[in-house]
Amino acid sequence: MNTLLEHIISDCRQYTAQGHVATYIPELANVDPDQVGICISLDNGREYFAGDCQAQFTMQSVVKPLILLQALMDSGVDTIHSLVGVEATGKPFDTFNYSDQPLSRTNINPMINTGSIALCTLIHGATYRDRFGRLLELARKLAGNPQLTVNESVYQSEKLTGSKNRALAYLLTAYGMISDPVEEVLDCYFRACSISVTCRDLARIAHIFANHGAHPVTKEQLFPAEYAKYVNATLVTSGMYDGSGEFALNVGFPAKSGVGGGIMGVIPRRMGVGVFAPALDQRGNSVAGIKALEKLSRELDLSIY
Amino acid sequence: MNTLLEHIISDCRQYTAQGHVATYIPELANVDPDQVGICISLDNGREYFAGDCQAQFTMQSVVKPLILLQALMDSGVDTIHSLVGVEATGKPFDTFNYSDQPLSRTNINPMINTGSIALCTLIHGATYRDRFGRLLELARKLAGNPQLTVNESVYQSEKLTGSKNRALAYLLTAYGMISDPVEEVLDCYFRACSISVTCRDLARIAHIFANHGAHPVTKEQLFPAEYAKYVNATLVTSGMYDGSGEFALNVGFPAKSGVGGGIMGVIPRRMGVGVFAPALDQRGNSVAGIKALEKLSRELDLSIY
Amino acid sequence: MNTLLEHIISDCRQYTAQGHVATYIPELANVDPDQVGICISLDNGREYFAGDCQAQFTMQSVVKPLILLQALMDSGVDTIHSLVGVEATGKPFDTFNYSDQPLSRTNINPMINTGSIALCTLIHGATYRDRFGRLLELARKLAGNPQLTVNESVYQSEKLTGSKNRALAYLLTAYGMISDPVEEVLDCYFRACSISVTCRDLARIAHIFANHGAHPVTKEQLFPAEYAKYVNATLVTSGMYDGSGEFALNVGFPAKSGVGGGIMGVIPRRMGVGVFAPALDQRGNSVAGIKALEKLSRELDLSIY
Amino acid sequence: MNTLLEHIISDCRQYTAQGHVATYIPELANVDPDQVGICISLDNGREYFAGDCQAQFTMQSVVKPLILLQALMDSGVDTIHSLVGVEATGKPFDTFNYSDQPLSRTNINPMINTGSIALCTLIHGATYRDRFGRLLELARKLAGNPQLTVNESVYQSEKLTGSKNRALAYLLTAYGMISDPVEEVLDCYFRACSISVTCRDLARIAHIFANHGAHPVTKEQLFPAEYAKYVNATLVTSGMYDGSGEFALNVGFPAKSGVGGGIMGVIPRRMGVGVFAPALDQRGNSVAGIKALEKLSRELDLSIY
Repeated sequence: MNTLLEHIISDCRQYTAQGHVATYIPELANVDPDQVGICISLDNGREYFAGDCQAQFTMQSVVKPLILLQALMDSGVDTIHSLVGVEATGKPFDTFNYSDQPLSRTNINPMINTGSIALCTLIHGATYRDRFGRLLELARKLAGNPQLTVNESVYQSEKLTGSKNRALAYLLTAYGMISDPVEEVLDCYFRACSISVTCRDLARIAHIFANHGAHPVTKEQLFPAEYAKYVNATLVTSGMYDGSGEFALNVGFPAKSGVGGGIMGVIPRRMGVGVFAPALDQRGNSVAGIKALEKLSRELDLSIY
Repeated sequence: MNTLLEHIISDCRQYTAQGHVATYIPELANVDPDQVGICISLDNGREYFAGDCQAQFTMQSVVKPLILLQALMDSGVDTIHSLVGVEATGKPFDTFNYSDQPLSRTNINPMINTGSIALCTLIHGATYRDRFGRLLELARKLAGNPQLTVNESVYQSEKLTGSKNRALAYLLTAYGMISDPVEEVLDCYFRACSISVTCRDLARIAHIFANHGAHPVTKEQLFPAEYAKYVNATLVTSGMYDGSGEFALNVGFPAKSGVGGGIMGVIPRRMGVGVFAPALDQRGNSVAGIKALEKLSRELDLSIY
Repeated sequence: MNTLLEHIISDCRQYTAQGHVATYIPELANVDPDQVGICISLDNGREYFAGDCQAQFTMQSVVKPLILLQALMDSGVDTIHSLVGVEATGKPFDTFNYSDQPLSRTNINPMINTGSIALCTLIHGATYRDRFGRLLELARKLAGNPQLTVNESVYQSEKLTGSKNRALAYLLTAYGMISDPVEEVLDCYFRACSISVTCRDLARIAHIFANHGAHPVTKEQLFPAEYAKYVNATLVTSGMYDGSGEFALNVGFPAKSGVGGGIMGVIPRRMGVGVFAPALDQRGNSVAGIKALEKLSRELDLSIY
Repeated sequence: MNTLLEHIISDCRQYTAQGHVATYIPELANVDPDQVGICISLDNGREYFAGDCQAQFTMQSVVKPLILLQALMDSGVDTIHSLVGVEATGKPFDTFNYSDQPLSRTNINPMINTGSIALCTLIHGATYRDRFGRLLELARKLAGNPQLTVNESVYQSEKLTGSKNRALAYLLTAYGMISDPVEEVLDCYFRACSISVTCRDLARIAHIFANHGAHPVTKEQLFPAEYAKYVNATLVTSGMYDGSGEFALNVGFPAKSGVGGGIMGVIPRRMGVGVFAPALDQRGNSVAGIKALEKLSRELDLSIY
């Protein structure tokens, strides 16, 4: 398996030249665009690696499934579902186009910014620092990595430059969908996006979603299977932004990408995958990361369709 | 299994009251809205039934996966993909909203009318009657039912009233995406939508998609596995119109619905399902049909996520 | 006055190089792009000319005010207003973007194709040939030019290539806004667009709108003043496509342009202007024509604001 | 003239029942909805009144022409025009629908919130308090009323509840169209909207726009005629929100309405009108106010078309 992964990485590294690292904050702009790493987490704790699998990067949108999960655990399916719908929007992740219709649950979903920001208000906690604390705990538990922490300079930069997210949060406020102070809600969101991980963390988190909430080694049920399916189903229709349809075709399993260059791939009942390659296509997806997942899917017949 | 299906049908019949049959042509408006039928096709030719499984109805949009398949078989993945994209549009199936952008492959997919009409031009044949003939042959072969034929009065009505489809076809023409005469292309499309089937036909067709192109009894490979995955992946993001996200959550497998009241469900590597219940929700999906698939999925753990 | 017009034409001819003639049909593509002509019609039959004022060109969208007027004369304000609204759409003249809302009077106006095609159905006549006949009669009467006639080859080309207009007409049909056969309605519309005129014809027609329906020489009231104001007001918000706002700023009176290169300018209570310069900007407005009207407006203080 | 105005008011008071006062802040919700007042300002200082012409109300969007004027006076036409376009958007004044296109000058104008907020950044001043001070000075000078001041409780409420405007301002920031701190820019905007006036103030301000910048009594040129025409032209296409087209038809002169219930009407070269009637239609325009202007326009033949 390690050989296979090595082959995939060496085949895919060329594709990094077709993308560009995110540039909206210096911390992302200064990343080495040629990195590619992959990790697979299989049952009984077997893990395989190749490439830049030690590299740290921020989760960015890859944290959205965790925000959704924590909100599900804290507030339940019905409450989540009444605030944020699950249909694909056919629009970029940071879209402002609400088609002359009032913003409502029917035109957002948990994998676009508007939906994910709204879901932060359904995580429990006395303060938004507490809420973020619980989210970080969840990430640490799923990744089996108590060291996970926020990249402070990325967080500060996100906070400083996040005008579009502020606009989305005030829009949610204007339509009565959130009522907490915008800056506090966003602080939780910006911290969440800035959690620093490696491919291995993503592979392990993905594996637990693949395992429907059960820890692959201890078999402990960390959260209800129903929530895992909720998250996985949402990933399928919206996880790869407006490239989700093409990803379903070429790769064929639930996945979530982030502009930090990470992708978390969930192969239900089989395994978790984490990839990292920070050069992005114009949709904000990792170019070499998608290529690596395509090859992996073909080699191991991972498509669920 | 038959007992399970009977239970499901008797549980779900009440939901027919929550929907309304399609009314845009008299042939659909006059259908008995209380009907519910289901059929499952398993390996080795085992088939199970319950309810109104003898009832004939027209495929309508359920034929779209077959149009896509025939186009794939005749013109190949690259040609199909360069004409019609695969992203969810976030819009109703008959949308005219092309967001001030020129109509192009990026804003259509094979499961909305515009995409499906365009794909008719990639089916081979000297005339559009010939093209439709090949499509009907394909439907007969997959359903194992040489009797499949067009419901003439539905076809005539569709042809008479199809102003929106004419508008879409002329729009495709205006943007240079199709060049054949609109009325001929639409004639093929209207005939295809008017093919009359039962749940059993849908279950069998679905089973072959589930089986990645191999006939479940003879094991003959009727079309490449790659095409089955292409179709199944497309169904996941766009098969249930703008209810695809919710369907992924609650049911969890590729499916295609039509305003005739049919739904074809594909459970990859396991089985095919056909349901029929003509009372529709406002998105154009069969109300009781979706409920039946929800129960079936829960009982048999069919979600692929 | 002739000297002023000569100066304007010689100043503006350079701007023809900044535009391009319409190319969707050969008859328009082959026109000499360097032409510029202007004519002014003042009270008591005084007329002034400069440049290519003998050149024949087709009215194209400049005929829309006449279609609106004939529909008003035949069906009255209330009927017109209940079919076609008057708000600016903020969209191109041939837009298909109906914002996920059903097409209705609220998202069309008489100066975009959809609205103008719809208005053809409110002109009286036993056949659509008769309706067009009445429209041509109106054009002849207003222009005081019984020779006005259709450019047959333009008409045939429009008819042959008009896929987008066909799409719009079928959309109107689909939403129940028109019920006559699409090809007949469009035949009237295509003929109307193909009426061949000179600047002088446009200036005279404009003059009667400026004069609120009264013939400037005979003083005969050719149509109610109310209808002239209806047309003029509509021109202000929508007459120059999505350049109407800028035109209001820089020129400042009601006007209608067409892709044939003509612009008809109405200076209420003062005069009518016709210009012709077939090189168009990207919105479909005559580049040198607009420049000429800007200069004229400044020289003669014609802005009504 | 006073008799005419009395008649108009008594005829129009019934229409107040068809509207509703704005309810988004208590200060507006508690206003007596049955009020109707009108004032006309003619040359040589003649002024006529009827109805509730002493009533104080906040300018709200009626201040937008003043923001535009001050920005023109401080930064010039070219700078204004390169930041904020002048085309009608075909959308509500607080729209978020930017059609999947980046926000830019082409999809905003000075009479919608986004445009008006952006223009606050082009008013000169060391601080935003200073900028607002200059704007208030301008309003006082044009109204000839040194008492004009901010309604503090309306201002505080606007500031407290203005989520949608915050969203729009952050959107402007996100697209690089403004760079000053959002809360400061909005503070200026909220104060401006909260300036308290009577019909008479509006009539006098309007009169100066009608008079192309010259004071109707002293004849002093308060600002260049060109700026008056810029403002007036903008009012015609966008001043009455998405009811601008209908207003052009039925009333026929430049005007600006606000959700406080005021409308300022500019009849170029003739007079200024101010009306106040706080019951609004669904577009946010004063119902009885529009009716009053319709009658006035018909009686005095004020349409400029």
